[in-house]
Amino acid sequence: MVGTVRLAVIPGDGIGPEVVGEALRALDAAVAGSDVAFEQTPFSLGAARYLETGDVLTDDDLAAIKEHDAILLGAVGGVPGDPRLAGANIERGLLLKLRFELDHYVNLRPTVLHPGVSSPLAHPGEVDFVVVREGTEGPYVGNGGAIRVGTPAEVANEVSVNTAYGVERVVRYAFAAASDRPRKRLTLVHKTNVLVFAGSLWKRTVDAVAAEYPDVAVDYLHVDAATIFLVTDPARFDVIVTDNLFGDILTDLAGAISGGIGLAASGNINPDGRFPSMFEPVHGSAPDIAGKGIADPTAAILSVALLLDHLGHPEQAAKVQRAVAADIAERGDMRRSTSEVGDAIVARIGA
Amino acid sequence: MVGTVRLAVIPGDGIGPEVVGEALRALDAAVAGSDVAFEQTPFSLGAARYLETGDVLTDDDLAAIKEHDAILLGAVGGVPGDPRLAGANIERGLLLKLRFELDHYVNLRPTVLHPGVSSPLAHPGEVDFVVVREGTEGPYVGNGGAIRVGTPAEVANEVSVNTAYGVERVVRYAFAAASDRPRKRLTLVHKTNVLVFAGSLWKRTVDAVAAEYPDVAVDYLHVDAATIFLVTDPARFDVIVTDNLFGDILTDLAGAISGGIGLAASGNINPDGRFPSMFEPVHGSAPDIAGKGIADPTAAILSVALLLDHLGHPEQAAKVQRAVAADIAERGDMRRSTSEVGDAIVARIGA
Ligand SMILES: CC(C)[C@H](C(=O)O)[C@@H](O)C(=O)O
Ligand SMILES: CC(C)[C@H](C(=O)O)[C@@H](O)C(=O)O
Repeated sequence: MVGTVRLAVIPGDGIGPEVVGEALRALDAAVAGSDVAFEQTPFSLGAARYLETGDVLTDDDLAAIKEHDAILLGAVGGVPGDPRLAGANIERGLLLKLRFELDHYVNLRPTVLHPGVSSPLAHPGEVDFVVVREGTEGPYVGNGGAIRVGTPAEVANEVSVNTAYGVERVVRYAFAAASDRPRKRLTLVHKTNVLVFAGSLWKRTVDAVAAEYPDVAVDYLHVDAATIFLVTDPARFDVIVTDNLFGDILTDLAGAISGGIGLAASGNINPDGRFPSMFEPVHGSAPDIAGKGIADPTAAILSVALLLDHLGHPEQAAKVQRAVAADIAERGDMRRSTSEVGDAIVARIGA
Repeated sequence: MVGTVRLAVIPGDGIGPEVVGEALRALDAAVAGSDVAFEQTPFSLGAARYLETGDVLTDDDLAAIKEHDAILLGAVGGVPGDPRLAGANIERGLLLKLRFELDHYVNLRPTVLHPGVSSPLAHPGEVDFVVVREGTEGPYVGNGGAIRVGTPAEVANEVSVNTAYGVERVVRYAFAAASDRPRKRLTLVHKTNVLVFAGSLWKRTVDAVAAEYPDVAVDYLHVDAATIFLVTDPARFDVIVTDNLFGDILTDLAGAISGGIGLAASGNINPDGRFPSMFEPVHGSAPDIAGKGIADPTAAILSVALLLDHLGHPEQAAKVQRAVAADIAERGDMRRSTSEVGDAIVARIGA
């Protein structure tokens, strides 16, 4: 894509605007001197907007966002327990709504333990894998309900919906990703011994697509066993493909072992290109440290690298990634402000 | 309970019989000289039985098991990928069937990092918590189905069923457990921001029961965040109460950080006493090392301690626990056979 990229920017709540500010500076630095330009449209969405207007995401918001080529999101969500937010579920109404409406069926979450970053693991080994999390199905579809609420006879159900259509496309994406990586290894994570119907669909789909990728080595782990290996031998993983809920759980754990979710970037991708893909740090809005200028913008900046890569600018993406890696290697336990981290990385991108 | 305890013994498959053998020796040693006696009935159940007879768990088996006061189970499950087992789901048909039929609504999984045990965590701190996992509801109920199987239009659903009846009783058990522990802290783990119906039921139930336990400090974590804390700050946990699937995932992770599921014991408890409770190591049948006499029987022996405690013999339970703790403290990286570990622990119990 050459020319002007229309970028929807959703700074969001809490530390969102702070980290997005630095991410946008990194983006500018990365494309400076190239023939790519970004035209930004800010969208005021999140808890703050809800408190002001009562809206979470209107049809107009959604239509306007769809007119863009990509989305950069900071973090959304108010102060936990804020009574004024009791009626709203910003996560479901905004974040998940965007993922579903924009058909972000690949939730891409790379996990790298950068040299110089300390892990809570004593012997992490070389951690470099990517989780391909399904983003539009599973227990996230919002297909739940309850009867007799508040009585001793209440029943509350949640339905995980899995389709061949939905599973196959994300499994294909994961195989292609594995085939492009040096180790060419794919691990399906599910719970086939208990969730037998969904598990069977995932398993059969992986087996079928595997036949088209003889170069990719495939294995399977139950989700419970996968959490064990993530702390005892994370180096064994290359590409993990899994459902929406298991992916949610595994990627937070993956973030933790690789230096904290403060470093974890993610892409909510619509590989078809019918809708804009959305890039966001895995961390939340962290209201407790918001406004203090101390949030670490690294994950947001790494999300910009994923965005550039997705838009077909691998060189610019690599620039950002290298700058971040170099900064991380030297930061040690240094305490820096949000803008100091941004300055350091931006300087390296420009160098 | 004084007198003779009728104990159903299900050695199972793989290393099951080996570790159960040592566990029964530990049981004998623990009650020697007391007025408690165990009368054992062995049940041949598991993959081996299925291969022989085609039965997983017959109505007669179930009726016979119900005539007992408690169950000790080793591990069930054949060699993964064994084509002769393709038609059977031993886990669902045996292990889960027992949990459901015997109304084991509390799946109790203590996690202790014993002195002398190395953890994959660099700085684990003092790990001593117990997971109270719901055992008879959630996504484990087997309420799933699929249409158009094997076609591109396949849909496979899984339903998580949660009832006020089922959630309240396990939450009450967890509060009572927390109130009995020195730190008196209870953490609800769920995913209330996504699974809003089930999450709301769990949250309201915990809030309601909390009012009756002003001495217990309560907090809440999303399951993804809980996995982070399990590797960055496991010492923060005291009692975790959670649903069947989240509990499955968290307890494997908990086992991993506290020295491996080779040390993790569990109780499938029917607190009402209407049905026999079942005690089992968290580990599986490990067919790869079966028959070699090298499986670690520690988790099975610790399951005996849980069993004794449950049956109202806390002193005998403590004897077993102390013997195991002392053995663990000294074992270091020593390689011992199954019976050598058993010998060492049995000797300590008798001392
Ligand atoms: C905020 C929440 C709905 C979301 C999720 O569960 O997907 C978050 O945990 C994530 O991983 O992006
Ligand atoms: C074998 C399997 C069905 C079982 C479960 O998922 O409960 C196991 O993982 C466990 O934790 O006891």
